[in-house]
Amino acid sequence: MAGKKVLIVYAHQEPRSFNGSLKRVAVEELNRQGCAVTVSDLYAMDFEPRATRKDIAGVLCNPDFFRYGVEAYEACKKRSLTSDIIDEQKKVQEADLVIFQTCRGCMKTRFVHFPLYWFSVPAILKGWMDRVLCQGFAFDVPGFYDSGFLKDKLALLSLTTGGMAEMYTKTGVSGDFRYFLWPLQHGTLHFCGFKILAPQISFAPEIASEEERKEMVASWAQRLKTIWKEEPILCTPPWYFGQ
Amino acid sequence: MAGKKVLIVYAHQEPRSFNGSLKRVAVEELNRQGCAVTVSDLYAMDFEPRATRKDIAGVLCNPDFFRYGVEAYEACKKRSLTSDIIDEQKKVQEADLVIFQTCRGCMKTRFVHFPLYWFSVPAILKGWMDRVLCQGFAFDVPGFYDSGFLKDKLALLSLTTGGMAEMYTKTGVSGDFRYFLWPLQHGTLHFCGFKILAPQISFAPEIASEEERKEMVASWAQRLKTIWKEEPILCTPPWYFGQ
Repeated sequence: MAGKKVLIVYAHQEPRSFNGSLKRVAVEELNRQGCAVTVSDLYAMDFEPRATRKDIAGVLCNPDFFRYGVEAYEACKKRSLTSDIIDEQKKVQEADLVIFQTCRGCMKTRFVHFPLYWFSVPAILKGWMDRVLCQGFAFDVPGFYDSGFLKDKLALLSLTTGGMAEMYTKTGVSGDFRYFLWPLQHGTLHFCGFKILAPQISFAPEIASEEERKEMVASWAQRLKTIWKEEPILCTPPWYFGQ
Repeated sequence: MAGKKVLIVYAHQEPRSFNGSLKRVAVEELNRQGCAVTVSDLYAMDFEPRATRKDIAGVLCNPDFFRYGVEAYEACKKRSLTSDIIDEQKKVQEADLVIFQTCRGCMKTRFVHFPLYWFSVPAILKGWMDRVLCQGFAFDVPGFYDSGFLKDKLALLSLTTGGMAEMYTKTGVSGDFRYFLWPLQHGTLHFCGFKILAPQISFAPEIASEEERKEMVASWAQRLKTIWKEEPILCTPPWYFGQ
């Protein structure tokens, strides 16, 4: 799909990691299709995760009582957010598809998963969501969920886990993996209007063989060949909780 | 309960906020009981949320391939984590009860909620969880969920929301509020062994009247009077998903 624009928001400290490989093949495959790919490499950028008054470049509406959400909203309208936020918002604005590539776990044993980033994304990526997807840019009232401002865009979470697939089932020790996707896919991305493509979950690459890891990377590259033909998931509670 | 130790991990930028009031009355009430209360005021501390190699004060196990979880585990065993992590771990270690006091939303309208921190906690608090609750300190293998290292401690999430209670029901626009507690209470705190006390959720203080806000603060102070007699919740999927 020549001409499509893709933003990859990438959060891993080590370029040679499995996450780094997934990011690299995505860039290659999407470039091959003629897409324009931008990568926000959050650790390399030392991206600021803290939501503070430094995010407001201009004068505060109420310097005596700081409300982050209110100040960010007003600053967004006046284009006086701090430049790192504006830079990221421009990348999101231009993108047809935003891929979030990160790691949810890291192993110190061959046997059990460690939820290093606690059933969620690392704080550096959480901070990207807190600060970049602000009111006035990503949503407003009206203008959320199906009418969120980013409703013409696709989003896809590509996560690696420490745990094996069988741990993430309804009866497994960590519950169905879809449970922990609820706050990210529905509460965050869908709220902003994004259509959600099925997540790409690479289970337990650290305990896989070299060959299995290569297969996981290859299957991601393979999926990307037809990514523009995919239908979004129906992002409602039954997808997550099977009601 | 004189002699009990409580750590309040507090994440709000504005001391005069409703969150600030909830924190203040908790300190007052617990002091009145003779408890020793410590507050980690994350924004005031400018707490670092990013998990990077700076967290390892000593020599890395593998400087050529950085795995955060592995390096943090080894550094924890050798007591060579960076000092801000060690300071927080000491506070957790000494506490009988850890209260997390934070805000999940901030309003810019009287009518609809804004999930400012995206169905989760702000990145600064997420980063506290990522970095402080590391393997070797909070859990190991064996040693997680009911046998997590912090199993003799209680934890309680005290959250304020932007949205009103009726939005956080199974049929409400944001789903049952318990859905978004799963990654925090179960995936994080229970994984480390904490017994979970029922969450204290103050719905939509920004659209409440001054009197209603005072009532919410008073009911939190009232609950704390008998907090040591409370039984933990049964922290399993039925509590969250009603199966």
